Amino acid sequence: MSDSGESASPIRTTDVIRKKRDGHELSRAEIAHLVEGYTRGEIPDYQVSAWLMAALLRSLTRAETAALTDLMLRSGEVLNLSEFPAAKVDKHSTGGVGDKTSLVLAPLAAAGGVVVPMISGRGLGHTGGTLDKLESIPGFRVDLPIAEFREVMRECGCAMIGQTAEIAPADRKFYALRDVTGTVESPYLICASIMSKKLAEGIDALVLDVKTGSGAFMKTEKEAAFLAELMVETGERMGKKMVALITNMDQPLGLRVGNAVEVEECIEILRGGGPSDLRELCMELGAWMLHLGGRADTVGAGKREAADLIDSGKALDKFRRMVELQGGDARAIEDPSRLPRAKHSLEILSPKGGYVSAIQSENIGNACVILGGGREKKEDAVDPAVGIVLHKKVGDRVSKGEPFCTVLYNSDAKAAQAKRLIEQSYEFSETAPAATALVRRIISGSAK
Amino acid sequence: MSDSGESASPIRTTDVIRKKRDGHELSRAEIAHLVEGYTRGEIPDYQVSAWLMAALLRSLTRAETAALTDLMLRSGEVLNLSEFPAAKVDKHSTGGVGDKTSLVLAPLAAAGGVVVPMISGRGLGHTGGTLDKLESIPGFRVDLPIAEFREVMRECGCAMIGQTAEIAPADRKFYALRDVTGTVESPYLICASIMSKKLAEGIDALVLDVKTGSGAFMKTEKEAAFLAELMVETGERMGKKMVALITNMDQPLGLRVGNAVEVEECIEILRGGGPSDLRELCMELGAWMLHLGGRADTVGAGKREAADLIDSGKALDKFRRMVELQGGDARAIEDPSRLPRAKHSLEILSPKGGYVSAIQSENIGNACVILGGGREKKEDAVDPAVGIVLHKKVGDRVSKGEPFCTVLYNSDAKAAQAKRLIEQSYEFSETAPAATALVRRIISGSAK
Repeated sequence: MSDSGESASPIRTTDVIRKKRDGHELSRAEIAHLVEGYTRGEIPDYQVSAWLMAALLRSLTRAETAALTDLMLRSGEVLNLSEFPAAKVDKHSTGGVGDKTSLVLAPLAAAGGVVVPMISGRGLGHTGGTLDKLESIPGFRVDLPIAEFREVMRECGCAMIGQTAEIAPADRKFYALRDVTGTVESPYLICASIMSKKLAEGIDALVLDVKTGSGAFMKTEKEAAFLAELMVETGERMGKKMVALITNMDQPLGLRVGNAVEVEECIEILRGGGPSDLRELCMELGAWMLHLGGRADTVGAGKREAADLIDSGKALDKFRRMVELQGGDARAIEDPSRLPRAKHSLEILSPKGGYVSAIQSENIGNACVILGGGREKKEDAVDPAVGIVLHKKVGDRVSKGEPFCTVLYNSDAKAAQAKRLIEQSYEFSETAPAATALVRRIISGSAK
Repeated sequence: MSDSGESASPIRTTDVIRKKRDGHELSRAEIAHLVEGYTRGEIPDYQVSAWLMAALLRSLTRAETAALTDLMLRSGEVLNLSEFPAAKVDKHSTGGVGDKTSLVLAPLAAAGGVVVPMISGRGLGHTGGTLDKLESIPGFRVDLPIAEFREVMRECGCAMIGQTAEIAPADRKFYALRDVTGTVESPYLICASIMSKKLAEGIDALVLDVKTGSGAFMKTEKEAAFLAELMVETGERMGKKMVALITNMDQPLGLRVGNAVEVEECIEILRGGGPSDLRELCMELGAWMLHLGGRADTVGAGKREAADLIDSGKALDKFRRMVELQGGDARAIEDPSRLPRAKHSLEILSPKGGYVSAIQSENIGNACVILGGGREKKEDAVDPAVGIVLHKKVGDRVSKGEPFCTVLYNSDAKAAQAKRLIEQSYEFSETAPAATALVRRIISGSAK
């Protein structure tokens, strides 16, 4: 076993590990030694995992976090979108159950005149992924090369693709290692991972949707706010306009969880309908995208503009155009029967009358994974057709025997398992629960 | 990158890492999952190094330390020495410059009637190794198989060999990984490493010499005492009689540093001569070995017995017999010219008159490594002939121009480098420095 990386630089890997272990601040050169050496394969996994654990337990300073983000960002290609005169703005969510706002926001903001170069991930565990949802549209391609990605943006102002090998390769290596070494749960490492990928898109501004609650990665508002502030500050250090909205994930967002069913729900929103919580969040996030992108003087003006873009049909037109340009069957927008449909459905009936007092979103997400709509491991295939339709959300009245959920499934055994999990996820009460706000807090940068 | 070890046991490696990361106490089963899975090659280095960093930063409880020690011990062969009716006692030192007591103590204690199954290490960095010293005796074999090791003990009551592949293989893997991941400096991990190897020798009692000071691994007495208490408690939990002496390593022990020259100095001690500090420490440690081995009712009686064993020549006879049995040229004991001799020598003269106020032992050790008498990397070969003879120790008077050191060397360039380092190691003062005790503290177990 050797202490590697010594030939490449006068900095020794073990010294960098020890320094962080002892709680000292690393220089940019020391972090560069680690990120560059690991990306090039010169520093072995076992040294980086020891460093990651030290970083998690000792924490990183703001300067270290910014340096780590910047170095991971520079480990690959950084898109130069200066050919587009308009502001480039993206939105990123930390992930939740039924969270599908990206599919609404990319065309909405593009309709408003900003350019949206959205590079997204796949679902893992109980949270769904934007790419899986998009791929439920027959023919839709998320693996466009960068040249085609630019072409789509030039044509319609937005494009949505998956992570490419060229973007932040260091983050891919770091993340895979963190996943198996108990070093995922560090706000500093999470910040560097998210921000390095997003800033490699060549954006001017970023709107963050940081989820908190039972279905979110950050269970408490305090943790969510800490991560949000860290990301806002890191982005601003790198010259970006930033805002973070802390939003509620105590229950799934909208009424549908799955892939094709979530695309349908987004089309409803783009038509001016859809569930009120999903619409509200899309309007809030869209307003900030337009505001930071210089298309609305205030967030309030942004909200009015976002509503107009929906009402006028411009946002839906953008979505249709993007689907066409990325090879998807745009007829599915008018005719949802062209989307994959599950063979069977099953209603779950309320065991008692009263109010829905809580929905454990994590279990709803897991029920969707069991049906085949998500993946437990990266290699798993996803069934685009299955899903869950919620007829009742927290605060809704329900009668005994009334259906509160419908399970859309292709396998009887899986449906039975999912049903049990959904039944356990719902809680009922005799009196109406207190209402909670969807947007809990807004953490805006100095550039607001 | 996969989370391994899941098939072997219902315990998941990432859960064990996370639990320690979050500061919780691991069960014996969880530690066993880690130690056994790693030893079998089922758990990858990168998961173990993350765990090691978490263990270093979160620390281990006494129960966890004992379980880790016991599981590393059981990862290989545990010697059964029940064929020997006498008590089996060993001594272990945490390592220092000029520390050569093992060569005196094994035959001394054996002459007193205890059995000493001593398995030692090689030198690394500024500290020398017992095996390298023994190998400077022409023909001496330290690589005896266990059967021959028993045979030598049966014949003369003691035997001294190197680590074999059968003894505590888990520790070898863990130590190699700790060495390159900044996870050496944990008293809990150090304790488990030392104690697993020593207790695998099948001993009943262990005397620990925990060094503290500028030339030691533990720079402060507080750190040394913490490690000593941990090892004493861990040994007692495992049913062994234990004692630890915290001893001074602010200057080299004895007057010679090297390999053949240290063997010569040990022979002087065994003849009743030699430097007073080395003799004092051998008498203290030897007394405890005899006491814990049931051969002296008190430590005081043990000291008198140790002195008698030297004066009667019985200890030297045992040494001679052991050298013969292990293939060494026993004539070297009477005729040191049979030991390897350096071609050249060089005196270092005092730049001023007064007193020696300090000697940086670490630099003396490093000077010996430069001469070729030690190794920087495990693969380095050692020159048995070279070394350093100290004519003056702390508190000694010295005149301007008087030699305070002699360098024994085989290469002019290396001698010049070593000379500079030795010159920097000595400090002089006009008044005599305060005397410091060699044995700072004794941490005895409940079985004293």
